[in-house]
Amino acid sequence: MSVEQLVKDICVQARQAARRLSVVPTGVKNQILLDLAQALEQNAPVLQEANALDLAAGREAGLSAAMLDRLTLSDKVIASMAQGLRDVAALPDPVGEITGMARRPNGLLVGRQRIPLGVIGFIYESRPNVTVDAAGLCLKSGNAVVLKGGKEAINSNLALAKLIDQVLEAGGVPQGAVSIIPTTDRAATTALLKQDELVDVIIPRGGEGLIRFVAENSSIPVLKHYKGVCHLYVDQSADHDMAVAIAINGKCQRPGVCNALETMLVHADEATVFLPKAAQALMAQGVEIRGCPRTLELVPGAVAAQEEDWPAEFLDLILAVKVVESMDEAMDHIARYGSQHTEAIVTSDYARGRRFIDSVDSSLVLVNASTRFNDGGELGLGAEIGINTSKLHAFGPMGLTELTTTKFIAFGDGQVRS
Amino acid sequence: MSVEQLVKDICVQARQAARRLSVVPTGVKNQILLDLAQALEQNAPVLQEANALDLAAGREAGLSAAMLDRLTLSDKVIASMAQGLRDVAALPDPVGEITGMARRPNGLLVGRQRIPLGVIGFIYESRPNVTVDAAGLCLKSGNAVVLKGGKEAINSNLALAKLIDQVLEAGGVPQGAVSIIPTTDRAATTALLKQDELVDVIIPRGGEGLIRFVAENSSIPVLKHYKGVCHLYVDQSADHDMAVAIAINGKCQRPGVCNALETMLVHADEATVFLPKAAQALMAQGVEIRGCPRTLELVPGAVAAQEEDWPAEFLDLILAVKVVESMDEAMDHIARYGSQHTEAIVTSDYARGRRFIDSVDSSLVLVNASTRFNDGGELGLGAEIGINTSKLHAFGPMGLTELTTTKFIAFGDGQVRS
Repeated sequence: MSVEQLVKDICVQARQAARRLSVVPTGVKNQILLDLAQALEQNAPVLQEANALDLAAGREAGLSAAMLDRLTLSDKVIASMAQGLRDVAALPDPVGEITGMARRPNGLLVGRQRIPLGVIGFIYESRPNVTVDAAGLCLKSGNAVVLKGGKEAINSNLALAKLIDQVLEAGGVPQGAVSIIPTTDRAATTALLKQDELVDVIIPRGGEGLIRFVAENSSIPVLKHYKGVCHLYVDQSADHDMAVAIAINGKCQRPGVCNALETMLVHADEATVFLPKAAQALMAQGVEIRGCPRTLELVPGAVAAQEEDWPAEFLDLILAVKVVESMDEAMDHIARYGSQHTEAIVTSDYARGRRFIDSVDSSLVLVNASTRFNDGGELGLGAEIGINTSKLHAFGPMGLTELTTTKFIAFGDGQVRS
Repeated sequence: MSVEQLVKDICVQARQAARRLSVVPTGVKNQILLDLAQALEQNAPVLQEANALDLAAGREAGLSAAMLDRLTLSDKVIASMAQGLRDVAALPDPVGEITGMARRPNGLLVGRQRIPLGVIGFIYESRPNVTVDAAGLCLKSGNAVVLKGGKEAINSNLALAKLIDQVLEAGGVPQGAVSIIPTTDRAATTALLKQDELVDVIIPRGGEGLIRFVAENSSIPVLKHYKGVCHLYVDQSADHDMAVAIAINGKCQRPGVCNALETMLVHADEATVFLPKAAQALMAQGVEIRGCPRTLELVPGAVAAQEEDWPAEFLDLILAVKVVESMDEAMDHIARYGSQHTEAIVTSDYARGRRFIDSVDSSLVLVNASTRFNDGGELGLGAEIGINTSKLHAFGPMGLTELTTTKFIAFGDGQVRS
């Protein structure tokens, strides 16, 4: 069978499963999540045997230590996968919720009922634990999912697929509710991206290269973000200690993630006092400062920022710093170079905080808090399948509710339109 | 200047306008809508002079009487455009609403704030009144809009554009908030569909040919529906008189629209009594019945349905009719041939009504009411810019709220992530 036919068959089966899955009761879905958690723990040796094949191949292929680490299904990772499933089981089921029910003048009762999206195509890179996370979130939200993992994790993913299949079948969930495309062929990804008659949405997770490949080749809507160029604006009247703490947290707590801080903008009135102090604290943590000319005057040891530093996602201990004459200049800079991901202001001025919140067009806008909070768990969504920085359907972190939509429902007693 | 450059310049200006428009107060937007309504009425002669050029060209090009009628800016149409704007001014502004504000364990206050989508590309066919409707809805929801109308209405649209420009400028709204692409060149449509860096969403309105062209050529997300193949299922225990009235309303009240009824499915237990009676009433209204073999036995004068009749959107006084053995067969038929637009059941059975509502995957599912209610006005949205039968972002009629999204906002007092 060709790869294209294989992918199409999987998607056809997913489509059929989706129709039945949409009405599976919450209790049944939760029990399967709990059973799967237990099965993962009980079958850890089998999973680790398969994982060992991937690790050996990865070592031979010269994967970095960091990549091998992400690929490893340690006891700790397996326990965390199982706990993740139990957490998802404990979350409320968004499906079936009815809102806005109201009576029209003709007596027709109209409202909206929350329903699954249908079939989700999920494309990701090396971490095999993502396989289980995504399967759990899609199942709980009543969606069928077609998973395409990275080639480095193929043996681990096939072992997980076998286990998931067994648990779903025992739980009475339709076959095809969770499918893993069993090949490392990149043509399978391209084929998946063309199934617009069968797949409702594509969610990619990985590096910018993967995301761009998916966006450019998909005929299905894609929920995605390319990068996080997150800004902190230190306003006139900012509390300097607070601003330093938020800058250090944003830049240093975990520099390699999309909600890490990349650029700090400082109001000119504060720069003389604030910048030397902030820079000293940042440099003490090993941060390289790439500054505008005014920053260079105030911060010994800073290097001159180039134009390409302003839109850069460093994902490293590097911070671009610019002194601005006004909040408008800061917001213009964000609009020009930002990625609509996360921006924060530190201010003690009520009106300016309000204006920043209203005017900045990003998926999370914060006053007096770290950009690192842009995460489904931290924002209260319970779990997160990804983040979207395009504005359609969901803007920001996506939890269970963002894997659903609503249909209109109407209860009449014979109403016709006049 | 090339058409591509012209379109790009318009979109750049729209993008800039969108940023400022997102924070224009509701009162200012409403006043502009009211001023525009008045300007339309006061300038009716100028508009009709331009419209006369389109009508003359249309007659020469051999447009049908129906098309010429849709193209005409009569006094009545102009009054209705003005009233439409006043209605939109009276609707609540969705922008700025804050929901779900809750305190996280660390004290961070997190919620969602409703914001405009940004720049909307709106592509439509001959009716020039759509120009004003779309401009009004986009302005009220804080979005900039780039309009590309049909070539038949170009003179009317240019006259409307001039008037809209004057009113927006006088009202202090940023230039570029409403733009009409001033050319009939189809290359302009193609160029608009490629501005994914500048335009957030495309909404096409017109025949299936236009919609397919847009969907296939757009690199921007498209909110659309191709067609409405709407079903009525007459269940066991249905009230026959009610079912007849709903069938006649669905099929005959306005056969040429997307929420008109196209197929009726009848439970076998009811068919012998119900079908002859229903068919007689429908045929008395001039409806042609295309039936399954069992229908042909029961309905003299019915013609045999072909396979291509089941997925057909007739948009005419033709109804496909099929006798089914069970509700499951009816729902399988809908899943196979339907367009996820609108389906209705007539039943007096509580559990079966509930199951139909839960199981049928369409943008509106009704119990005991006509499919003709799938309309923004009828469902209580106040006004409608279109309907979406893909599930992402909005499913069903789209009103002002569906032209917006939400961003996360957070208020802290120095929170950092640990």
